[in-house]
Amino acid sequence: MATDTRERLVDWLQDAYAMEQEAETMMKAMASRIEHYPALRGRIEQHVEETRSQAAQLAGCLEQLGASVPTAKGTIAKGMAAMHAAGNAMMKDEVAKGVGISYAFEHMEIATYRSLVIAARRAGEAQVAATCEAILAQEQAMADWLFENQPAVIEAFLEREAADVTAKR
Amino acid sequence: MATDTRERLVDWLQDAYAMEQEAETMMKAMASRIEHYPALRGRIEQHVEETRSQAAQLAGCLEQLGASVPTAKGTIAKGMAAMHAAGNAMMKDEVAKGVGISYAFEHMEIATYRSLVIAARRAGEAQVAATCEAILAQEQAMADWLFENQPAVIEAFLEREAADVTAKR
Repeated sequence: MATDTRERLVDWLQDAYAMEQEAETMMKAMASRIEHYPALRGRIEQHVEETRSQAAQLAGCLEQLGASVPTAKGTIAKGMAAMHAAGNAMMKDEVAKGVGISYAFEHMEIATYRSLVIAARRAGEAQVAATCEAILAQEQAMADWLFENQPAVIEAFLEREAADVTAKR
Repeated sequence: MATDTRERLVDWLQDAYAMEQEAETMMKAMASRIEHYPALRGRIEQHVEETRSQAAQLAGCLEQLGASVPTAKGTIAKGMAAMHAAGNAMMKDEVAKGVGISYAFEHMEIATYRSLVIAARRAGEAQVAATCEAILAQEQAMADWLFENQPAVIEAFLEREAADVTAKR
C-alpha cells in the first residue's frame, strides 16, 4: 500500500513533536543538576524555552494539516530517553557525558528537520517547510554552541576533578 | 578524592572502546538490512571496517597506558543500543530514521574523541592524542557523508513509498 507524502509528513511531524517533548524533559533535568558550569546551564535553559516554542509550532503544523497532536511519546523519544538516562546523574563525569549526549541529540533533531523540510516541500506544504526550516536553524545554533563550548567545559571538568573539587555537574 | 587526568583518560578510552563495539554491532545490522539504497549501504560497510580498526587502536592505547581493555559494554553503549533498537526494523521508515540515528551517533563519537584529545594532551600522552585525532577525522568524514547524502536518501525513500515499492530498507 502506497504512503503518500502528506501522510508521511504528518507521521514525521508527530515523531518530531514527541522528540521535542522528550528533549524538554531531559534538558530541564540536566540544567537543574548543573552547578559549576553556568554558561552551559544558561544555554541549555535558553534551549528549553526554544524547545517549548518548537513543540507548539509543530502542534500548529499538525492542526493545519487536520492531524492529531500525539499524546503518547514515540519510540524514538523513548530510545533517546534511555540514552539520556544512561548518561546522567550516575556518572562521575556527568557534565562531560551530558555535553556529548546533548550534541548527539541536536544532530538527531537536525536530521529530523532536514527530512521534514524535504517531505513538506514534496507535499506542497510551504508553510510547514518554513516552520521546520526555522526550527532547524535553532537546532543548528544549539549544536554550534555545544561544539564551540565543549573544550572549555571539558578543560574545566578535568581541572576541577584533578583539584578534588566537585566536577561532575 | 581527586581523579587525575591520566585516570580519567583511561576511563574515557574504555568508554570509547565500548562505544565502538556497539557501533560495529549496530552498523553491521543496519547495513545487512538495506536493500534499495546501495550508496548508503556501501558507506556504512566501509565505516564498519573503520570502526573495527578504531577499536583495535583504542585497545592499543589502553595497553600502552597499562590499563585493561573492557570486556563488558558500558552504559553509554547500552543507551545507544536502546536508541538504535528504537529506530530499527520495526519502522516503515527504517532507512530514514536510520540515517538520522547514525548521524546522531557519529556526533556522540565526535564529542567523545574531542574530549579524549583534550584529556590525552593534559595527561602528556601525545601518542594517544594523535590516535584519537585520527579517529576523530574518520568520524567527522562519516558524519559529513551522512549530511551530504541524507537528502538523496530521503527523496528516494519518499518516491519509493509514494510509488508503492519497498521503501523502508
